Amino acid sequence: VKRILLLGAGRSASVLISKLVQNAERKNWQVDVVDVNIEQTKQKIGQSNYVRAIEATESNFTLIENYEIVISMLPPDKHYEVAKACVHFGKHLLTASYNTSEIQSLHHEAKRKNILLLMECGLDPGLDHISAMQIIDNIHAEGGVITRFKSYCGGLMSNKSDIGNPWKYKITWNPKNIVLAGQGPLIKYLENGEIKHLNYHRLFKQTHHIEIENERYEGYPNRDSLKYLDIYGLGSAKTFIRGTLRKEGFCAAWHILVHLGFTDDTTIIYNLSDTTYKSFFTSFLPFAFSHDWGKKLTSEYPYLVNEAIVEQLHWLHIFSDDKIELENATPAQVLQRLVEKYWRLNENDTDKVVMQHQIEYIANGKQLNLSSSLVVEGNNAPFTAMAATVGLPLYYVLENIVENTIYEYGVKLPLKKWLYGPVLSRLKHDGIHFTEYIKNTNP
Amino acid sequence: VKRILLLGAGRSASVLISKLVQNAERKNWQVDVVDVNIEQTKQKIGQSNYVRAIEATESNFTLIENYEIVISMLPPDKHYEVAKACVHFGKHLLTASYNTSEIQSLHHEAKRKNILLLMECGLDPGLDHISAMQIIDNIHAEGGVITRFKSYCGGLMSNKSDIGNPWKYKITWNPKNIVLAGQGPLIKYLENGEIKHLNYHRLFKQTHHIEIENERYEGYPNRDSLKYLDIYGLGSAKTFIRGTLRKEGFCAAWHILVHLGFTDDTTIIYNLSDTTYKSFFTSFLPFAFSHDWGKKLTSEYPYLVNEAIVEQLHWLHIFSDDKIELENATPAQVLQRLVEKYWRLNENDTDKVVMQHQIEYIANGKQLNLSSSLVVEGNNAPFTAMAATVGLPLYYVLENIVENTIYEYGVKLPLKKWLYGPVLSRLKHDGIHFTEYIKNTNP
Repeated sequence: VKRILLLGAGRSASVLISKLVQNAERKNWQVDVVDVNIEQTKQKIGQSNYVRAIEATESNFTLIENYEIVISMLPPDKHYEVAKACVHFGKHLLTASYNTSEIQSLHHEAKRKNILLLMECGLDPGLDHISAMQIIDNIHAEGGVITRFKSYCGGLMSNKSDIGNPWKYKITWNPKNIVLAGQGPLIKYLENGEIKHLNYHRLFKQTHHIEIENERYEGYPNRDSLKYLDIYGLGSAKTFIRGTLRKEGFCAAWHILVHLGFTDDTTIIYNLSDTTYKSFFTSFLPFAFSHDWGKKLTSEYPYLVNEAIVEQLHWLHIFSDDKIELENATPAQVLQRLVEKYWRLNENDTDKVVMQHQIEYIANGKQLNLSSSLVVEGNNAPFTAMAATVGLPLYYVLENIVENTIYEYGVKLPLKKWLYGPVLSRLKHDGIHFTEYIKNTNP
Repeated sequence: VKRILLLGAGRSASVLISKLVQNAERKNWQVDVVDVNIEQTKQKIGQSNYVRAIEATESNFTLIENYEIVISMLPPDKHYEVAKACVHFGKHLLTASYNTSEIQSLHHEAKRKNILLLMECGLDPGLDHISAMQIIDNIHAEGGVITRFKSYCGGLMSNKSDIGNPWKYKITWNPKNIVLAGQGPLIKYLENGEIKHLNYHRLFKQTHHIEIENERYEGYPNRDSLKYLDIYGLGSAKTFIRGTLRKEGFCAAWHILVHLGFTDDTTIIYNLSDTTYKSFFTSFLPFAFSHDWGKKLTSEYPYLVNEAIVEQLHWLHIFSDDKIELENATPAQVLQRLVEKYWRLNENDTDKVVMQHQIEYIANGKQLNLSSSLVVEGNNAPFTAMAATVGLPLYYVLENIVENTIYEYGVKLPLKKWLYGPVLSRLKHDGIHFTEYIKNTNP
């Protein structure tokens, strides 16, 4: 019997958990799922003699000692501690979180102990690497030279579920991260042979238009793309961008929230319990509030605000008379409450994960343009497309490393064929597959 | 003999040092001036048997034990350590820096030991408090009720010294603080009875027009003004703003630097030694660089950039072919090098300190509008208006507490008459005095 530990049973873990429940008996696995919310975890598991819910009590992760493989769906800031414990006890770790320099520092020790610490193996990061590397390896195998690489991914709503919602967006992952998206170090990418830096306060204003299966999206660059230039082996590329997708119209409206300071997470404002959203957010406006705030905002920022955007702000109830019901909070925390309320999935809502790679390359004297697109429609919550595309890559890597050889140790990303190949072929059986077009663009 | 210690002999200390040199013998003081740059400090002191230069070697401030009063002109981040040592050894401390919650935590201990820790006693903060409190106390003494209070201060250039300089600005204080001005927590102030928050990315775009002695300035709110509402005893005020002054045309040009991310201090960019300013700053532009970057910038941001602003960027050599000559640096650090080079005071340049309080109040049934303005023209460096207006308040408080009683102990600001009165009357002898106008604005 293989003893497997899943840390964290939150929003994105449901598909992973149901896969574990389906397969544990047949595969002779004993799976324990640890979460602070034991009741919800039990519900997600249902009836199973092979998958147990355990209430999270300690935070030192010593329980890792009792398992052979750990999958962590905990928040990213826990993963250094988890990875350290895994190396200490000699256990493999799989996560969907970004690698960090802290975790990277465990590489040699993990390698020495023949431990795999697999990071960035969910959706984004995860399936983006997995699917991109297959294309890149194939192009390189036929002697092609890649000159441009752009890759976008977004966790969005199915079209039927955002009818009437002018944002065309709801929450399918961590709401705090949605509000803070783009904050942190400068955004970096490569464009026409030049390194580009982009600061948060221009990010949502400077978007790219993208069409996928006849629908219009907008993309903005995500974190430090340059890091992945070497990781993907794309020294030949003159343009290299990893980006995030939203449906058309989202970014310009989000930009005005950023511009006004509503997403600031540095300053705690005190004594808010009797304050309304209206009076809170009014304190950021360059004019006194009145019922025609939309007109005033448009005339103050004609280049940033239009009627559609005013409608979007209205829909988020930014200037509502409801009480904030937080004692002390940053503007970002106040905004998060509205986002959680008005971007909540309804019972019948379904989500959609969209990904596209756009690759220009030269092969056999031809200049080619490859696009590879994925659109995954979710079922009702909790079996969202987000939970599927985050959880299944982790699950299939788990299956693969339990049943086959592990070819690499230390801190790794799913970049090599022994890791990505089985994931992509098994996802195909679930109906999750990319559609590829190649166009000859010779002048 | 009174033993006095001056920590730090930088840019703003020259007038203070010359005052100490002039008066030490007559007053029977022994003054030691500690600085890392011993040669420059000796030069500033000149010939004196009563004022000595000492090279700064240790950083634990144990030498404080040997003195009775300490004046610190060190960078603000040193002042908690200095204040702690002063309390430990039972010595009074005078500084020109902002009070902090850390320093405030020493209040009770200092009070118990009859030690005065006087903060915010330079120019801004300092002379602004000193001059405002005299007006406020006078208005309150005649039963007046203050309804609006605005106060602005700027360290600028004399008109003759900024001819041809389209920024009308040079460096008379800490260049790092000039580049980072406005960064940090949200700006807060009170306007027409409403608390207002302003984020850094709108700060330089949302300025107020101010006229002082027939010249046009622009002001932007400075840090958290609300803190001073209580400190000044102005609970009656519906508008309360402390702000910073620049000559007209500065802020809009600085805003585009902020907007493009050139003042970012969060992200270190590596391997810059062979990079030019042009290629560095080009990496932030939403277009490829070409000689007509001014036109491109204007057409990209028509609401932010005009010909005058392009001329200002040109004058700062933002897109010059010079090497940066820094190995690793944040954008703010790179920009600081340009600012230090192109905003440097020439030998014959003179500076100008400008301050204005605008106060509306009701007294004896009349609605009154008071303006109190200070314009101090500097001599050539190092005897700048900045060094005079920072150093003299410290010096006159020093004189006063050595020769008279200390009426308050603990962490204090110069808000009470026993502190501000002697400073203002002695400054008058130096020709530094405010011009007051009162206008009846009854409808």
